[in-house]
Amino acid sequence: MGKRIALLTSGGDAPGMNAAIRAVVLAAHKFDCEVIGFIHGFNGLMLNEFQSLSIASVTNIIHQGGTILKSARCKEMHLPSGIIKATETLTKHQIDALIVIGGDGSFTGMLALSNTWKGQLIGIPGTIDNDVDGTDFTIGFSTAINTAIRAIDKIRDTANAFDRVFIVELMGRHSGHITFNVGIACAAEQVISFENFNSDEEEATLAQLTDGIEQSAKIKHSSHLIVIAENLWPGGAQKLAEQLTQRSGVDCTLCTLGYIQRGGSPVAKDRILATKMGVSAVQAVIDNQHLVMTAELNNTMNLVPLNIAILHKKRVNPALVDAQANILALTAQTEN
Amino acid sequence: MGKRIALLTSGGDAPGMNAAIRAVVLAAHKFDCEVIGFIHGFNGLMLNEFQSLSIASVTNIIHQGGTILKSARCKEMHLPSGIIKATETLTKHQIDALIVIGGDGSFTGMLALSNTWKGQLIGIPGTIDNDVDGTDFTIGFSTAINTAIRAIDKIRDTANAFDRVFIVELMGRHSGHITFNVGIACAAEQVISFENFNSDEEEATLAQLTDGIEQSAKIKHSSHLIVIAENLWPGGAQKLAEQLTQRSGVDCTLCTLGYIQRGGSPVAKDRILATKMGVSAVQAVIDNQHLVMTAELNNTMNLVPLNIAILHKKRVNPALVDAQANILALTAQTEN
Amino acid sequence: MGKRIALLTSGGDAPGMNAAIRAVVLAAHKFDCEVIGFIHGFNGLMLNEFQSLSIASVTNIIHQGGTILKSARCKEMHLPSGIIKATETLTKHQIDALIVIGGDGSFTGMLALSNTWKGQLIGIPGTIDNDVDGTDFTIGFSTAINTAIRAIDKIRDTANAFDRVFIVELMGRHSGHITFNVGIACAAEQVISFENFNSDEEEATLAQLTDGIEQSAKIKHSSHLIVIAENLWPGGAQKLAEQLTQRSGVDCTLCTLGYIQRGGSPVAKDRILATKMGVSAVQAVIDNQHLVMTAELNNTMNLVPLNIAILHKKRVNPALVDAQANILALTAQTEN
Amino acid sequence: MGKRIALLTSGGDAPGMNAAIRAVVLAAHKFDCEVIGFIHGFNGLMLNEFQSLSIASVTNIIHQGGTILKSARCKEMHLPSGIIKATETLTKHQIDALIVIGGDGSFTGMLALSNTWKGQLIGIPGTIDNDVDGTDFTIGFSTAINTAIRAIDKIRDTANAFDRVFIVELMGRHSGHITFNVGIACAAEQVISFENFNSDEEEATLAQLTDGIEQSAKIKHSSHLIVIAENLWPGGAQKLAEQLTQRSGVDCTLCTLGYIQRGGSPVAKDRILATKMGVSAVQAVIDNQHLVMTAELNNTMNLVPLNIAILHKKRVNPALVDAQANILALTAQTEN
Repeated sequence: MGKRIALLTSGGDAPGMNAAIRAVVLAAHKFDCEVIGFIHGFNGLMLNEFQSLSIASVTNIIHQGGTILKSARCKEMHLPSGIIKATETLTKHQIDALIVIGGDGSFTGMLALSNTWKGQLIGIPGTIDNDVDGTDFTIGFSTAINTAIRAIDKIRDTANAFDRVFIVELMGRHSGHITFNVGIACAAEQVISFENFNSDEEEATLAQLTDGIEQSAKIKHSSHLIVIAENLWPGGAQKLAEQLTQRSGVDCTLCTLGYIQRGGSPVAKDRILATKMGVSAVQAVIDNQHLVMTAELNNTMNLVPLNIAILHKKRVNPALVDAQANILALTAQTEN
Repeated sequence: MGKRIALLTSGGDAPGMNAAIRAVVLAAHKFDCEVIGFIHGFNGLMLNEFQSLSIASVTNIIHQGGTILKSARCKEMHLPSGIIKATETLTKHQIDALIVIGGDGSFTGMLALSNTWKGQLIGIPGTIDNDVDGTDFTIGFSTAINTAIRAIDKIRDTANAFDRVFIVELMGRHSGHITFNVGIACAAEQVISFENFNSDEEEATLAQLTDGIEQSAKIKHSSHLIVIAENLWPGGAQKLAEQLTQRSGVDCTLCTLGYIQRGGSPVAKDRILATKMGVSAVQAVIDNQHLVMTAELNNTMNLVPLNIAILHKKRVNPALVDAQANILALTAQTEN
Repeated sequence: MGKRIALLTSGGDAPGMNAAIRAVVLAAHKFDCEVIGFIHGFNGLMLNEFQSLSIASVTNIIHQGGTILKSARCKEMHLPSGIIKATETLTKHQIDALIVIGGDGSFTGMLALSNTWKGQLIGIPGTIDNDVDGTDFTIGFSTAINTAIRAIDKIRDTANAFDRVFIVELMGRHSGHITFNVGIACAAEQVISFENFNSDEEEATLAQLTDGIEQSAKIKHSSHLIVIAENLWPGGAQKLAEQLTQRSGVDCTLCTLGYIQRGGSPVAKDRILATKMGVSAVQAVIDNQHLVMTAELNNTMNLVPLNIAILHKKRVNPALVDAQANILALTAQTEN
Repeated sequence: MGKRIALLTSGGDAPGMNAAIRAVVLAAHKFDCEVIGFIHGFNGLMLNEFQSLSIASVTNIIHQGGTILKSARCKEMHLPSGIIKATETLTKHQIDALIVIGGDGSFTGMLALSNTWKGQLIGIPGTIDNDVDGTDFTIGFSTAINTAIRAIDKIRDTANAFDRVFIVELMGRHSGHITFNVGIACAAEQVISFENFNSDEEEATLAQLTDGIEQSAKIKHSSHLIVIAENLWPGGAQKLAEQLTQRSGVDCTLCTLGYIQRGGSPVAKDRILATKMGVSAVQAVIDNQHLVMTAELNNTMNLVPLNIAILHKKRVNPALVDAQANILALTAQTEN
């Protein structure tokens, strides 16, 4: 008989988490391991809320958004009392290894847990933000940017029909992976994110954005899209919309895509990535790995130490930022 | 040689407007009529901005959102000076008939124009709001509700993953066609719209909504969606979210779908409806009809007088409102 | 305590069947009725395969394709022995009313059953073919035509890139509801279905189709789509492709959309229609109706006698056939 | 004044080609270069069919499938006479560099052309098959696999409703990139492609496939999907369906996805990849590169020699093939 594996999803849900759950269960089965799923993230460890995960329970979930194990933010995991409860629950269930699908916040909880619980701890990066260092992609990111561009394609229809200015606010917490990739993929005239904006440059940025809008307005029949990261603009994106409306004299309308970016059936990339990572995580359990995260580096599966993964946020490729600024934001020079 | 037809799209853009433009041009061609498209709605008449519409110019547009003729709100059409300019432009181009694709605001402009311009005036109802009386459906409505339910399906994924409450604000200006149909189609636990809410019932509605949230919370593992019409709640939907959060003690998050509801490739219903209405409008021109709107009544094409169409907003079917309230909003009684 | 209702889905699956199941269960609950679902259509009655349907079991299924009750063709229901088994099973479970979601084949089985079983029999029309008489729409039809047009929009991309001829074969068994609606909605250059083709006109139709292809070829840069119903062309659609290739000297490629037309998350129309029909079916049970089918006529819920519904196939609106032939199939006259 | 660049799309169209065209034109504009687009691939060089590409002409195309420059297979490019015509046309237009978006067949034509024409030759890999060596991804591949999984998700609905076996044939010419990635992403029970099948193993494979179907049939309520590459099975996929039906005694239905895999609005990955490659190709022109192809290697833009790119087909990652065979094809061992 193989090892006993505990599995949970933690933090913001991300499309592909179910595909990862399925892969963990299938791979565990191959190695004669049993899998117990805890419900609502680390809260499931606090409350001993769980379900056994058979192959039947992961049938027909690879394409479903959300997570069948539910998720939650768990404040108690930041307290010594929470770590003790988690340790007790894992011990009671005679767990050999805990696999956590989540973001860097969840991995911090795992490091804390490693002080008291002596089983193996394996992380799988699942977050739409793609801000986990050590892996090229996190589960959910590809679906989120596709959801965003499909939504913005629709907004572009109206923008074109009215030669109108829209500001679209995107998720990403404090990094611009979503914003930059979406901005390029939807041909946004301007992109503003943490990578190319500091709050002390508000005035300069306002001038530059206004200039872009005015250049667009000079061209007959043209829309103008500004894509902006959430949590970025001093006073909020609605304030930016008002500032730009006032300065440019053109109606600038804010659209906040919000929670539609989190859900939905995962795209192929996220299903495949999640499947590979789930298999890789179980392999890591078999190989007696500990405190590592599954990672895709240069299209190859890898394991990276958890403490490296949470050291700092992964940066957006500077070449992408440059290309957007220098090659693709062409409005100002267009004259046809 | 047939008649000279002018065509424009006016008011908010709606998916299927391009399909209607195509159908007008194809049908006109069959009857040897020429079609001139004016750009940016009635503004095209103010500024004499136009393009000739050949069959080639409407190839491969049936599936495109927005409108190739662009749209706009035109304030000048509410002034005598605007009516005079429009009359002059139509006269200069020797137009026999003007076909306008738009909502009731646009039709009001046509009535005003009928006092000074003596050509035929034919309306095609195109608005996502479906609030034009005299026709069962307006062009764009079916696409808008489908866009909304696909977005809300994604939000439901996160709501389920977190057993969370979301309030989703939908378009519709001042009628609940979108809100009620979307609410039913996405299995919303509660629906609030003009049809079942008066602002003097704020307190009672708050109590009822809070009760629904609390009943849901009693059931383990369950999400809760409240769908609300825009322009409805005193102080705005964000205020409602705060009120419900405070009363229920549960985090109630607002999602505003906004402009994604306007654009996108039209669904089959809107393409077919637009095609039938475009053909019907040209047939009306040939038949010397005047001041009529194309309408689908009981799945059959019809013409209704324009002044009837704008007399009052079309009501949502009361049976739908009742069913939602009495059969489908089951949360409170669920006890499985 | 209310009645005991049995529920099953039969025949080809159709998107929206789950929405109907949900509505039946919710409405039954409102009237204090219990619902038992039989699995795999009438086979569930043969084998006494069933599950109790609580509100929890229909949560989060409104948007899912397929049917949670599974379906099947059941040959035994055409034999006296099958009717007896079904009667025994329904009697054993003390069922008051049986609701069947399916097509006319399923309804024929119900009529046979009415000779031996004395409970109420209520039909809900669910089939993508829309060929059930007595109702304007069947559950699943709207989704099927939308799936088809999205697929054909993609084929059009390649057709346009290569100025190429594609023949697209669509489902519909022996009626052209899907073919005509899809043909119009995807701007097919030519549509062939039961309504405008007899097998003794093969030669004339070949000449006409070839003529259309040649006219298109004369226009620079243009694609050509022919949409055809399954089970129509003598020798099959692949033979038509070869005949047209030989006659026109142009490569004519067949695409068979096949089973993708059956599945998928239902569009809003099907979710709402299914919800209304499910509620209406339970209301019919309460009202002691028998041998009736729920129907949408002129946007209003109705009940029609089951024997009327199966008397003959519903016809495609002749106006649609005429419009396609006379107004929309414009290739031959295009000269820009 | 910068260089004069010629641009064409060649071979099978792929989603994202328009995004690449746009990026070439935007980047060329930045470097003061002019771009002339030749129509219908190399045929445009044969017939001197072209259009000038301004920024306006590439506005609002990033999200469109197909190619605005049209494509074609050009037999004449394989003849000395064709190479001479191409040389003459490029010389007449005083072209400094020719950028070709296409697959390895197109690149072979470029190598031939390099003998007579002395301008720069730059390739951009655009094909849904992803079989071009030297780059991790080709433009169009990501969209094609997403289109396929969305279609198969729908087929799975029916397969589940009927506990049925479907065989789905996928594109890919002679490599299994599409088949393996789609097979994993749609949780296919079995995957057969060039990488795991030789025609002399027909008997063994049939036995293995039949075994899989029978194992699935033993499990109550389960569907079974076999994904197969086109051009693989001796006698064709329809023959395989018949062989499996006969051996297993279960109905095995073939679905051929066909041309829907080629078209459609590109996913984010293809839009971004195409944008990066278009910018990179123009940069290569500026840098006086010759006979190179833009490539994405380990998420970084690169240039690789054209002759390397066409030396042999890129192989599917063997780890993926192994994982599918050993971990994910679990049917036989499932016993829930």
